[in-house]
Parts: sequence; C-alpha cells; structure tokens
Amino acid sequence: MLSRTSFSVSRTRARLFLSSSTAPLPACARFPRFHPHSLATTTQPSSAMSTFKQEPHKLLVIPGPIEVTDEVLYANAHPSMSHVSADFIPVFGDCIRMLRELLFTQDAQPFLIAGSGTLGWDQVAANLVEPGENALVLNSGYFGDSFSDCLRTYGAKVDEIVAPFGDAVSLSELEAALKQKKYKVVTFTHVDTSTGVLSDAKGIAATVKKVSPDTLVIADCVCSVASEEIRFDDWGLDVVLTASQKGLGTPPGLSILVASQKAIKVFETRASPVTSYYGSWKKWLPIMKAYESGTPAYFATPPVNLIYAFNTALKQITKQSPSIEERFRLHRETSARLKHAVEELGLKQLPVKSSVAANGMTACYFPDGLTAADIIPPLLKKDIVIAAGLHKDYKLKYFRIGHMGISAIDSTRRDVDKVIAALKESLAEAQAGKNALSQTARTRVVDRSMPAARL
Amino acid sequence: MLSRTSFSVSRTRARLFLSSSTAPLPACARFPRFHPHSLATTTQPSSAMSTFKQEPHKLLVIPGPIEVTDEVLYANAHPSMSHVSADFIPVFGDCIRMLRELLFTQDAQPFLIAGSGTLGWDQVAANLVEPGENALVLNSGYFGDSFSDCLRTYGAKVDEIVAPFGDAVSLSELEAALKQKKYKVVTFTHVDTSTGVLSDAKGIAATVKKVSPDTLVIADCVCSVASEEIRFDDWGLDVVLTASQKGLGTPPGLSILVASQKAIKVFETRASPVTSYYGSWKKWLPIMKAYESGTPAYFATPPVNLIYAFNTALKQITKQSPSIEERFRLHRETSARLKHAVEELGLKQLPVKSSVAANGMTACYFPDGLTAADIIPPLLKKDIVIAAGLHKDYKLKYFRIGHMGISAIDSTRRDVDKVIAALKESLAEAQAGKNALSQTARTRVVDRSMPAARL
Repeated sequence: MLSRTSFSVSRTRARLFLSSSTAPLPACARFPRFHPHSLATTTQPSSAMSTFKQEPHKLLVIPGPIEVTDEVLYANAHPSMSHVSADFIPVFGDCIRMLRELLFTQDAQPFLIAGSGTLGWDQVAANLVEPGENALVLNSGYFGDSFSDCLRTYGAKVDEIVAPFGDAVSLSELEAALKQKKYKVVTFTHVDTSTGVLSDAKGIAATVKKVSPDTLVIADCVCSVASEEIRFDDWGLDVVLTASQKGLGTPPGLSILVASQKAIKVFETRASPVTSYYGSWKKWLPIMKAYESGTPAYFATPPVNLIYAFNTALKQITKQSPSIEERFRLHRETSARLKHAVEELGLKQLPVKSSVAANGMTACYFPDGLTAADIIPPLLKKDIVIAAGLHKDYKLKYFRIGHMGISAIDSTRRDVDKVIAALKESLAEAQAGKNALSQTARTRVVDRSMPAARL
Repeated sequence: MLSRTSFSVSRTRARLFLSSSTAPLPACARFPRFHPHSLATTTQPSSAMSTFKQEPHKLLVIPGPIEVTDEVLYANAHPSMSHVSADFIPVFGDCIRMLRELLFTQDAQPFLIAGSGTLGWDQVAANLVEPGENALVLNSGYFGDSFSDCLRTYGAKVDEIVAPFGDAVSLSELEAALKQKKYKVVTFTHVDTSTGVLSDAKGIAATVKKVSPDTLVIADCVCSVASEEIRFDDWGLDVVLTASQKGLGTPPGLSILVASQKAIKVFETRASPVTSYYGSWKKWLPIMKAYESGTPAYFATPPVNLIYAFNTALKQITKQSPSIEERFRLHRETSARLKHAVEELGLKQLPVKSSVAANGMTACYFPDGLTAADIIPPLLKKDIVIAAGLHKDYKLKYFRIGHMGISAIDSTRRDVDKVIAALKESLAEAQAGKNALSQTARTRVVDRSMPAARL
C-alpha cells in the first residue's frame, strides 16, 4: 500500500524558490524552524502528485480566495480518511505547530474548526466576552461593522471608533477611549478586505498594554496572516483570527484562530457559561490539545481533506523558500509595484496614505466617468478576475485586486504583470469607448433620430 | 480557455450503474428529475478528469467520512474561484435544487454553510427555539445527549426521553410526553452514529402532527441522508440537518440543513433576537435565496471547492443511476448482507431488533473475551479501517462499520465482501491467539519464571 504524500513541490518550483533564499537569516531564527523530517507525513512526492496540474482557469486576483498551488489542491483531493486515525492525527497536529511558527508564538493555542473566517468572531464573542461586558471595536471598514454586530449578538456592550473612509483608527483616539472606560476586549481589523486599509497591529497592542493591560487585544487577521508581518508574542496579541483562503493559500472552509494563554485563562475563569455550542472552546480546547499530543478525540468531524490541504500550504510557507520573512518582503515589493502602476494609470487608491495601505491587496477608485461595468467585465474577458467594492457606502465607486500567496511571491507566474497590462488595456478601451460615446452624444444634438436607450 | 468540468463519471462506472437502472419508475416520479442539460456546469468530462484517480489507500468503512468517488475528489481540487462569480453561483444554486430533489421536498429551504454537522444543532437552537421555550429530545445515543447540550446552551428548557441502549424511543412514550407539555420542537436522531439505532422518522412526525401540530419536527439526519429513506414533505418534517461526509459521499466540512416553510415562518416571527451570529438564518437566508436565484451575495465566504465537490456528489445521486429509490434499496440490501454475515460470525448487534437497525452502518459487540485491540488493528493491517465504539457508557464493548454511498451501491467495488472476509479472518486469528494464550497461562502455573507483563 502506498502512503499518500501531501508534502511536496515540483522540483522546478522548489528550485525557483530556493534561488531567492539567499537573504540573511531572519530575525525569527530564535523560533526554531522544524526539520522537515520531524513532520508526520512523508516528503517524497508520489508519481501521481508530480503529474497533478490544476485545470486551466481565469487568473483569480480578488482579495481571497486566492490562487493556490497544485500541491495544495492535490492534498484537498486526498482519499477519505478517518478523522481519528493514526495517519491523520499528526497531520492535524503539525498544522497546529506550523501555525505557531508562522505567527511567531511559543505557546499560544490554535483552534482549527470547519467554518469561514466569520466563525472567529463568534469564538471571540462567545468565549472571551461575557454578556454585558464592554468591547471596543476599532472600525476601519465593512468588517468592523460586522464584528460589532457579532459581539452585540452575544450580549457585549460595544463602543466603536470609526475611522474616516480609507483610514485606520489613530492610536491617540484609541488611547483616549481606553482612558475613559474599561474594556474586556479591543478588536481591530488588521487589513479590512473591504477597503484595503492596514491597521497598525503592533501600535494598537502596545497602546492597549500601556493604558489598559488587562484588556485583550483581538486582531481580525483574515486578510493579513501570511501576507503581512504579525509577531504574536513580541507584539502581545491575545487573539489572531483568520481563514484559510487568503494569505494562507488554501481553499476556503477553515476558521483558524490563535489565542494567547492569557486569553485562554480569561476563557477558563469566566463566570457565565459560554454562549455558543459549535464555537465553544470548552468543546474544542480538549480536541486541539489531543490532536497536538497525538491522541484521538472527537467533538465534531474536522474538515479532513481541507486539513491535508492546509498542512501542505503551511509546509510550503514555513518549511520551504522563501522564508516567512522573505514572504513578507515579497508581498511588500509586489504590492509596491502594483500600487506604483495604478498610480501611473491615474487611479486613486482608497487608503489615504501609504502607511495604511495593505500589502496583500489594492483598492482603487474608478476614474471619473467610469464604473465597474467599464473595468471588471473587460478584465474578465482577458481571463482576469478582480473584485468589485464591498463597503456599504462606497461599493460602486471602487474595485479591489488581491496579490497574496503565490501571486505575490512567485514572480515566474507573472500574475501582477498580467493584471497591470490588462488593467492598462481595459482602461484605455473604456476611455476610448467613452470618448466615442461623447462624440456620438454631440452628434445626437444634430441627429435626434437615434434613440437614447441605445446609448 | 478550457471550462472546467465537475460533472462526469468514468464511462465504465456509468455503464455499471446504468445496467442496474432497469427497475420500474420510482414513486418519486412526481418530483421531476432535472434534465442534466439544465444544470449549470458542463457534462463533458475533460481529459484531466477522465485520468484522475485517487491514490491507493486503506478502505474506509467507518460511519463517516466514507469512501468517495474520484469525480468528487477531483471537484474538490477545483482551481480557486470567486465565491460571487457568475461561474460559481449556479453551482451553488444547483446544490440547493438537487438537495430538495433528494429529500422529496417542493419548497423547503436549504442552508449550506461551512461547518460540521454539529453546526446544524446550533442553527436549530439559535433560530427556532427562543430562550426559555420547551424542547423535547428523543435520545437514542451519544448524539441525543449532545443535541440536548446544544439546545440548553442557547437557553432552551430541555426534556429528554432516553431510549434503552440499542433501542429507539417508542411512539407511545412520545405521544404521552406531548400530551403533558407543549413543546416548541421535538428532536430525534434518525440514525444515531454512536449506536447504529434507526428511529422511525415517519412515525415520529405523524405522532407530533397528531398530538401537537404546532410543534416543529427536527430530524438529525447526519448519518441518514442518502442512505435511509427520507420524505420531507410527505412525512411533514420541519428540519432535516446533515453533513457532507456520510451518505452524501463528499469530504467533511459542510453543514447542510433543510427547513420547512413552517419552520422559516417560526424563525421569521420569533420575538427575541437570534442568539448566534455565524449560525443566524437572518444572515444566511438572503444569501441562500440569492445563490438560488443566480445573483451574488455575501455574508461569509462559502467553502467553494467543497461546494463543487458536493455538486458533483449530488449529481451522481440525483441525476445518475441508481435512482434515489434504488439507492435506498441497495443500502438496505447491502446492510442486510453484512448484518447476516456478522450474525453468522456469532456477533451480536447493538440495535435490539432489526426494525431499529440502520441501513448505512452496523454496530456489533465484541465477542466475549475479545476487545477492540483484538479486532481493529488486525483489520487495519488488512487495510480496512473500521470504527471503535462511541457511546460514553459502552464504547469499549463494540465496534462500528459504515456501509454508505459507493461502498453500499457499487457492488463492483466489493467493499462489503472485503470487510466480511477480513472480519472473519481477524476474529479467527484473535480467537486462536486467545486459545494459545490460555494454553500458555495454564503452562505458567507450572513455569513461574515467565514475567506476567509479557503476556
């Protein structure tokens, strides 16, 4: 019987990555990088793996789901496995260990649960905030609104500091709010996928620690894990919640949350019962500990295939080139290149300044006179899928491009070059079309026989 | 650009199925079976699809996850797609439509949410039962305990009728309970995966309708959809909740729930707010309606790849041979064959009578003197994966075999034959080992130099 391989890269890809790995040793070297042979699954690609190629498809450059590797997709097609089998348990356990490594934490507690990123909010609201307790939401877009909504659903008293559109909440506003009221948690969206606004995670955590050290710092990192720098222990974060389908380069369907031991203590000493069943850490904590220690346990069936896929993605991120630090640098460089290009095309970005602009996505206003219909379908015809706006008040005014994971780090794919070229072409076509139309409109003043509807 | 195919079967498999499809037209003919060409995705297998084979692996015959087809796994390896794209929306919409067809319902409302089956309990408890309302749980095993626990978490006042181990709750007990108190919901586990006990879904629904017609009938069908007969409209069910990894033959990670319009009305007219965020139908109902009508909508990113896989599985179930009715018959026949074989081997089943024994799984006590260690690892060595016990009080006393999906309906796989042969062999080996041991033990009375630990 062949044992199946979920850890492998094509030799070409591996070589390409290795060629960019000559950078100095990363600062994270104090966190030992696992030796590949300590991992549970074999590292020899099977012959089937080396031939698996995903089908030709349109280039997906929305801010999640993102393009993923053939290896990850092949792992998602793993034959059915028992969720409590000796073969599967260490695959799950390795995900927990590699996730810690990626977030630079020694002892924080990961939770891997079938669900979307949204389920992370429920976990925070139901496990860490008791009904009637105060929560402060730093709102930099659509996902701040939603996190508030979720916290209120579970009984929290929520205050919000709402940043101006395209900006992040300032640290001085946060500091002032913390001085006025005691909060059980402060939440922020590291990258708000609706606006592409990046919050200063390190600064927020430092401010909370300084003014209100008991308050838990909750980072919604759905659109930032593995594309933006996150240093869980050094920065003093208490929760990082995310999902599989963005920087982590895995299909969607996995809610990923990492909680500090301080947060676990707060959960364990809460006075009232947890207000969710499926999202209850009382149920999940023993399961996560069991899987990590290599023993079977059951609460609900984990998404086994997706865990294989996630394991493969985490190995590519933490065990292969580029290093985690290099990965951050490559995301910054790719982002800078795309942002420079859109500026050259005359497009204005949503983030009001570069310090609050995400490195894994770019959000731009449509040029004057153009709408989504002028840009998005023409790009689609060129086999490039970008995203429309999402923020409730502005969604018709802008579009979003994702550049996370392999689209950002593997320059041989030329994903961002393709996007820039297609965008340039589509904008020129749209402008030319508008000019022709306005020419026709001027003609119409003379020739009134042309029905207006046809314009 | 090639369009990707998620609906295809190998020609050989299709022919084998078709050869058994000469049965008379099923009674469900009044529910029109969709014409394949009305479905969104193409029906031509691509060349890549026709060559994809899952890797050799141990035969998985636990009561879920189950063995799945190559086509389903290949769909799970679909390239990344936008969750709001024109390509993906009808794939999701078709899942909703085919699910109705499978459950024989005209207008019930499906919910497809990233999560495990457990999330279905949260949906019921948070959307249909208001805090302080009465719920009656018909408890036929481990999953009855858990459903009660979930209902209480969201504030329901729960009464339970606990069946004797290996039996289902009787309809007369249900009737008596309904006459004593008014319940918002009655819940039951159609097949309790921990015991293999089958409840009389039709009889339970009829009893509730007769005695307490306003009470909602909630069926936990995680281990019964597509393996046991379920007639949603005819029987008057209000909720069927299930998961992807059992009879539906899809990898785990999808919570699937179908609610009657009566249940939706109860939800819509509730007095208090819904007590979950991620599980809130207030959030999900507009999304499900949008996907079904072919328009994009967003609350949380759906598990796109798993939806492709589920779509493929549902097409195999509802559009190909065998028909849905034939599928039920084949599950009954396979089950009867395995149950007859284990009886011949002298094994006693957990269900106290055949009328309460599931058709998709079999639970047997270990023979006297043997334990899990005598049976499960030897079967594993023969590349067959069965499950240990799960019920809290009896889990060391029995084992479970799953026979759902392709293991039940595709006789060319010979899955159940392999299980029977391996079980017979393992039992004989274990008995021979015990006999040898007891012979050695008798010898030890004379030779006391042998250390006991080595036995």
